[in-house]
Amino acid sequence: MSEYKAFTTDTAIAFADKHSELFGEHSKLSAEEFGGDNLHLIFRVENDKGTSLIVKQALPYARSVGESWPLTTDRARIEAEVLKMHRRFCPKHSVDVRYFDPVACAILMEDLKAYRKVRSELIAGKKPGHLALQIANYMANTLFYTSDFVLSGATKKAEVARFLNPEMCLITEDLLFTDPYCNHERNSIEPSILEKAKTLWHDEALKAEVAALKADFLSKPQALLHGNLHSSSIFIDDDNCKVIAAEFGFFGPIGFDVGSLLGNLLLNYLACPGHHALEDSSEQQTYLLQQIEQLWQQFSEAFTELMRRETQDPALESGLYQSKFLQQVLSDSIGYAGCELIRRTVGMAHAADFESINDASTRATCQRLAIKLGRELIMQRTELSNISQLLTLVRYQQTE
Amino acid sequence: MSEYKAFTTDTAIAFADKHSELFGEHSKLSAEEFGGDNLHLIFRVENDKGTSLIVKQALPYARSVGESWPLTTDRARIEAEVLKMHRRFCPKHSVDVRYFDPVACAILMEDLKAYRKVRSELIAGKKPGHLALQIANYMANTLFYTSDFVLSGATKKAEVARFLNPEMCLITEDLLFTDPYCNHERNSIEPSILEKAKTLWHDEALKAEVAALKADFLSKPQALLHGNLHSSSIFIDDDNCKVIAAEFGFFGPIGFDVGSLLGNLLLNYLACPGHHALEDSSEQQTYLLQQIEQLWQQFSEAFTELMRRETQDPALESGLYQSKFLQQVLSDSIGYAGCELIRRTVGMAHAADFESINDASTRATCQRLAIKLGRELIMQRTELSNISQLLTLVRYQQTE
Repeated sequence: MSEYKAFTTDTAIAFADKHSELFGEHSKLSAEEFGGDNLHLIFRVENDKGTSLIVKQALPYARSVGESWPLTTDRARIEAEVLKMHRRFCPKHSVDVRYFDPVACAILMEDLKAYRKVRSELIAGKKPGHLALQIANYMANTLFYTSDFVLSGATKKAEVARFLNPEMCLITEDLLFTDPYCNHERNSIEPSILEKAKTLWHDEALKAEVAALKADFLSKPQALLHGNLHSSSIFIDDDNCKVIAAEFGFFGPIGFDVGSLLGNLLLNYLACPGHHALEDSSEQQTYLLQQIEQLWQQFSEAFTELMRRETQDPALESGLYQSKFLQQVLSDSIGYAGCELIRRTVGMAHAADFESINDASTRATCQRLAIKLGRELIMQRTELSNISQLLTLVRYQQTE
Repeated sequence: MSEYKAFTTDTAIAFADKHSELFGEHSKLSAEEFGGDNLHLIFRVENDKGTSLIVKQALPYARSVGESWPLTTDRARIEAEVLKMHRRFCPKHSVDVRYFDPVACAILMEDLKAYRKVRSELIAGKKPGHLALQIANYMANTLFYTSDFVLSGATKKAEVARFLNPEMCLITEDLLFTDPYCNHERNSIEPSILEKAKTLWHDEALKAEVAALKADFLSKPQALLHGNLHSSSIFIDDDNCKVIAAEFGFFGPIGFDVGSLLGNLLLNYLACPGHHALEDSSEQQTYLLQQIEQLWQQFSEAFTELMRRETQDPALESGLYQSKFLQQVLSDSIGYAGCELIRRTVGMAHAADFESINDASTRATCQRLAIKLGRELIMQRTELSNISQLLTLVRYQQTE
């Protein structure tokens, strides 16, 4: 393959066959294109024994916007390399990349056929008990081992350069931190909440805090982030979770990954009344708050233990510094969770948690709450000094 | 020239002649090697009319340590490119680079023959009135125009990668933030202050704050720093200042440049009783505190005006954010100034301000004060909310 060509099922089969030992010599292979997203073609290639792999190919443009929004296919390299790096530090919860082809911009990877998307599970009212614990461990390991606690200055700088990912970062910079706070044409705002959304455009106190969060997103390369760790990037079965879709990966503030997931769990929390009857909704919300609490507690314990045991730079061994560092990760996480709530409500990229609520009035109530809670999280992020205070704020917000 | 060779006066002449229009066709050129430093050969190449240029060539090792400490000659490229970039944004106060040769690792540049080194001037009791104002403008312009306020995410990321400068950064990481706070063989501590120096090694509160400053040095690429802006990197004549020696340049926290200079002015302030009679010392100290006040006031006004007028990212236009940003630059600057005081006293690289004090007992008193003030600055950097409070602290420290 000497130049980029979008795969068909036939060329996807040939690609998978060539680069995998998984299929025997006389395997009869079939492929189906499925799901995919805005930016990728995705094929499942399967032999007649049911063994399968995924072929994920980057498109040179965003499908929803059309060829007028060209996008670097270098994100396929980024995705493959972030997944491999994260798998080094947390093999259990990172999808297995088998092969990456830089010309085809295609990744051959493990098929999570038996897994389900976390977002769909949560919307359906499932209550997997291992979600928060496992992803907390995933985050603690992948983020710690790519941070200044472990990497030498020179190694870290080289890694920062290898994962600059400017085009994908720009999407986040615009959609998350800029658009929702002005009357931007990319925003998608339901008429019923337009008045509430407009308050964001003139909220100078809020905009100052969002600016600080954006500045950190731009210039705080603490660790190699997944960069898009929401509940559709995590797949789950009865025992395990696996993280996929790392094309937004780059060196950024640790709280951004933690906050993205936190924000998406809160989004689902706010959406509960739109999906479940009263009692079920309350149970689901109780489950979600438990998960949120566990997510931070486990992350915080695991990260603290790693800092204590594995820090390589003697100057960063100070226990006092490490506990202040973690405190600041919590503030950042709460702030980014707030940004996520707001952008999923008024920005371009909404989430199924709200979108699939049929009743328009309930949906509008949820969206208004998301804007309100998002604002509170951003504004109060440095005052909330532990996860219990965050949970209290969320509960109080809900009953107001 | 196909491979690296250290210049002699003859090859330095040939290099200067080849790459400059300054010398006429029948010029009779002469060269002298002079000064130089630990890491460079420096030649003045001059014609018979007195027109001269400087040839600065990077050595592949640190001269003081010997060939056992190899150093990348890529720092010559860094120096040339930082100087050129800074000259774009502040031509008046950046030395003019005429030519850079990547193979010879040599820079041909303007000769500041009529200028004098600021450190020597201050030690000699000179009181140039234009120092602080001009360098404040230099810092405001060079730092603002290379920051996220102006550069797009993609441009900034590419520039960060172009100026990674890992080896030179490592020197600062070690000598400034690590060595002075432990019993490191690279430290150079006079026996008379050994007991005082030892307190640094067990000061857990201080080490936690120094760790935070180091972490920011590693992972806060706010702007393209000079990276070594002390009083020997600034040359001055009766009207003007020019900054040289940018081989430590990289994208780091803005407060690092401001704090380096602040720290070196404070160093000279503390050294005054060692160089001048009582009344002269007091006058010199008054002058230095005025310069420190002006340095911050002018930097702060110029940077504020630039943020107000020239910010390109709409999300960073918030005036409230901008004033918080500047406040944080002040804290950082005070912290890095404190680190500079301490490392110039107990670390490997001392400065002439103290070293040239002949009286051992006076020198020891100055050094003890530097450790004490350095610690106060680091510990109190977030509480000192304006420059007057800093000056009060300095005055109080002195009379204690």
